[in-house]
Amino acid sequence: MSKYTLGIDFGSLSGRTVLVRADTGEVVAESTLDYPHAVMDTALEDGTPLGQDWALQDPQDYLDVLYATIPDVLRQSGIDSADIIGVGTDFTACTVLPVKADGTPLCFLPQFRSTPNAYVKLWKHHAAEKYAARLTEIARERGEAFLARYGGKISSEWEIPKVWQILDESPEVYEAADHIVEGGDWIVWQLTGVLGKNTCAAGYKGTWSAADGYPSEDFFKALDPRLANYVSEKMNFPIAPLGKAVGGVTPEMAARTGLKAGTPVSSSIIDAHVAMPSAGITGPGQLLAIMGTSTCHILLSEQERMVPGMCGVVDGGVYPGYYAYEAGQSCVGDHFAWFVDHCCPAAYKEEADRQGKNLHVYLTELAEKQRPGESGLIALDWWNGNRSVLADYDLTGLLVGMTLSTRPEEIYRALIEATAYGTRMIVENFVHYGVPVTKFVATGGISQKNAMAMQIYADVLNLPVYIADGKQGGALGAACFAAVAAGKAAGGYDSITEAAAVMGRQKEQFYTPIPENAAVYETLYREYSALHDYFGRGENNVMKRLKAMRTKLRG
Amino acid sequence: MSKYTLGIDFGSLSGRTVLVRADTGEVVAESTLDYPHAVMDTALEDGTPLGQDWALQDPQDYLDVLYATIPDVLRQSGIDSADIIGVGTDFTACTVLPVKADGTPLCFLPQFRSTPNAYVKLWKHHAAEKYAARLTEIARERGEAFLARYGGKISSEWEIPKVWQILDESPEVYEAADHIVEGGDWIVWQLTGVLGKNTCAAGYKGTWSAADGYPSEDFFKALDPRLANYVSEKMNFPIAPLGKAVGGVTPEMAARTGLKAGTPVSSSIIDAHVAMPSAGITGPGQLLAIMGTSTCHILLSEQERMVPGMCGVVDGGVYPGYYAYEAGQSCVGDHFAWFVDHCCPAAYKEEADRQGKNLHVYLTELAEKQRPGESGLIALDWWNGNRSVLADYDLTGLLVGMTLSTRPEEIYRALIEATAYGTRMIVENFVHYGVPVTKFVATGGISQKNAMAMQIYADVLNLPVYIADGKQGGALGAACFAAVAAGKAAGGYDSITEAAAVMGRQKEQFYTPIPENAAVYETLYREYSALHDYFGRGENNVMKRLKAMRTKLRG
Repeated sequence: MSKYTLGIDFGSLSGRTVLVRADTGEVVAESTLDYPHAVMDTALEDGTPLGQDWALQDPQDYLDVLYATIPDVLRQSGIDSADIIGVGTDFTACTVLPVKADGTPLCFLPQFRSTPNAYVKLWKHHAAEKYAARLTEIARERGEAFLARYGGKISSEWEIPKVWQILDESPEVYEAADHIVEGGDWIVWQLTGVLGKNTCAAGYKGTWSAADGYPSEDFFKALDPRLANYVSEKMNFPIAPLGKAVGGVTPEMAARTGLKAGTPVSSSIIDAHVAMPSAGITGPGQLLAIMGTSTCHILLSEQERMVPGMCGVVDGGVYPGYYAYEAGQSCVGDHFAWFVDHCCPAAYKEEADRQGKNLHVYLTELAEKQRPGESGLIALDWWNGNRSVLADYDLTGLLVGMTLSTRPEEIYRALIEATAYGTRMIVENFVHYGVPVTKFVATGGISQKNAMAMQIYADVLNLPVYIADGKQGGALGAACFAAVAAGKAAGGYDSITEAAAVMGRQKEQFYTPIPENAAVYETLYREYSALHDYFGRGENNVMKRLKAMRTKLRG
Repeated sequence: MSKYTLGIDFGSLSGRTVLVRADTGEVVAESTLDYPHAVMDTALEDGTPLGQDWALQDPQDYLDVLYATIPDVLRQSGIDSADIIGVGTDFTACTVLPVKADGTPLCFLPQFRSTPNAYVKLWKHHAAEKYAARLTEIARERGEAFLARYGGKISSEWEIPKVWQILDESPEVYEAADHIVEGGDWIVWQLTGVLGKNTCAAGYKGTWSAADGYPSEDFFKALDPRLANYVSEKMNFPIAPLGKAVGGVTPEMAARTGLKAGTPVSSSIIDAHVAMPSAGITGPGQLLAIMGTSTCHILLSEQERMVPGMCGVVDGGVYPGYYAYEAGQSCVGDHFAWFVDHCCPAAYKEEADRQGKNLHVYLTELAEKQRPGESGLIALDWWNGNRSVLADYDLTGLLVGMTLSTRPEEIYRALIEATAYGTRMIVENFVHYGVPVTKFVATGGISQKNAMAMQIYADVLNLPVYIADGKQGGALGAACFAAVAAGKAAGGYDSITEAAAVMGRQKEQFYTPIPENAAVYETLYREYSALHDYFGRGENNVMKRLKAMRTKLRG
């Protein structure tokens, strides 16, 4: 008798549940609910206006996902809930909400219905920028050791800046909150009645580490005296390691969803990092690139190394027992979209329209006819700054080699090549600092859609490039963690690597380096490296000076 | 009783005659004839096919210009030919034809009617590229001193490569030619019966200098033994200094045109350099920029200096008694055209169409709203290599500072600014090497059409920018030289500077530097200079390596 697990993926606009066979990874049923309130970025439901760069959600939507999609997959599949051995979730992060001690979100309370700071701050809520800048500055001045784990900068998307904004703008909300919790932890709490903080969000977004815990009371006090007791007052609940059951489904939730009470629920994980088991990553050295508008790289290792320019290293941050390194490229798909939106001439648009193709497809068809090196172009892929390995958001883009015969498809290809060089820089940086990379696996939109780009990556990296079977995305990974929470005795697995090996999915087709292309790219990569270091490591800070001038002139 | 002169401008596609009042410069009448044979670049009139990059003309067309336009301006104006005191011409160069001793072009002879090398090779005939490359190489190996006067490179557009092509491909034509002459000298010969070689074409295109004459017999022999006696056999006629009468109109030509026999005809001049008197340049230090697809700069000085990176310095090359320095930027209007053709998105095209504007006008309107430095962009204006001051055609373009919010009009403005920085580099180079620049005058299409560009030039140069009144172009300058050939006693002038002061034209409106813009551009120019030297002076030869790779891969 087969056993099954549920994976529930909470994205930015919808939640999706998959029902997966634990011994094969086969997806038996799936169900999606678009969040009724979607993203609130101009006003609350009652019309209360929001400032610039706000992005809020209503947590009722997350509950509605449980109530709608779990019964739906059970109904579709006809599977007995007794055969469902575990439930897993992944969630956007840092997506935080202030709650009462019983888990009630403050925004559910009548007195806070019109208070924006009482709602869920979605990961892409960017209105805490000034708090992030002050935090980074103060941490740097104080020589806080945690800063090195995050490439020297704390993002406005992360936990403390968002919490500080709540405190500073709406002290009554901060005061009324017994806890401030990640959405992923809150939904597990709703399922199990148990509150824990998942190590993934705590480590990558919450400035926590297994070795050092949270930053010190002194540090929080230096930010704002009112924050001094933040950890002891608002975060006084345990860490919930990944791959462990936080608790079992409560009788109330069982009644609402059709699940069996007591079914183990795993600790939640960030929706990016959950791609690791989905993509079949089974151990150290297998670098996963999650390629979308930007790229996030995750790499496991048994050793902790201080690798300059990574975005974070978290002990047990993705797979228990491994250090998980995160690196990133802040502009990948965004480059190509910028080019198509702002630099692609009318004649190309007309011809693409005539052929019924979108411009990316049309440009790719033209670009794939070029041989490496034929355009004479090299770009530095820094239109949105450089996350790894320079961790410098004041860097900007560069394109060199244009002649009067340079054509749009050549620039388009040069931008793709630049992101591949950027990836190789990250790979070589890991290797140089003692974190081996033996395999490259890609997932996310670009990896699924653009075969030319993936061949370029294989040629530039001079490594085979494997592609995750992206159809189920995060939800399949959550189902893997659910299988580990259940354990082998119940029909699941005793480790996430075992679960990933069986339930994760890579496509049969992969991209092998073409030796003559790899040789040309070896030469071009040396050129890229020289430009990278000249503009990125202080020899000529023209980019930073120009950007500072631009910022000053634009007020 | 007013006196008049005729200026005849032989362009690439037509000839145009103006009748000008000598004491005011007022244009009284004008007449144009399109060349009946235009440019032959695929086949001769009889169908004989031409190779790639050929560009020929039929000299009959030049005679037809005389026969049609001179009687026309006389008829229009009703002026007595006795009051026409001089005739001047300007001509494209190097535009050469093989002729018999009596001036008959070889292509007029039945036996050469189907021989392409017997026709006029127009300035933009580029099929002698391989001869130019070999010539430059041999001159460099031999350490020929003349090479330094031309920035280290002899162009395929110039005289010796074109003559060498005739010899090598059609030795029977070379053999049959008693002379090989510039079109400008040939037309003066037809008017006067006297053959001379104008110092302008001789100096800038013919590798001749007042001090050293032509290159040595040894040099020609090293090119090709059959060329050894080129100078003594084919060029055995005198140099004809500018501003002097070569001779008077012959009775035969008087009869064909209605001019008075004996009317002085000045030595011809190149159609670019003739813009000096048209633009009212009256002496040293007044730099004239002739701005079109590329820009040509001409500057007079009383001293000869070896200025690195100039295109040529010719004693008496434009104004008698002065050294005339030529410099250039190989890509100016071509940059902006490239951008509009290949990088301007469909949405801009649609909006420009809706407003009934061409894209240059539309982009300029958007770009002029930007303040200097606001885009955060800097370009190196080398899409077509760098003529001055680096004299390196293997350099390519660069753009730095792009972000995801960079818009097309910002790149467009950055390209315009880059050409202004390039101009300032040329100005500073002249000053640094002892050739003062005290005034900047612009002529040519861009100077007439784009006020934003001209204000940017004023701000970047931190010099007032004066604009020639471009309506009469070259023909007015030729009329100035005609007035000098006539002399003061006859109602003309004794020097070209006097003629230019009265007959030349600058617009009343000029562009004054705006101090706050000039301050920002001072900073940006320093950034440009650093990039210019890094990429252009050997610190990082990435452009040359990329271009070599591109050339190799494209075969």
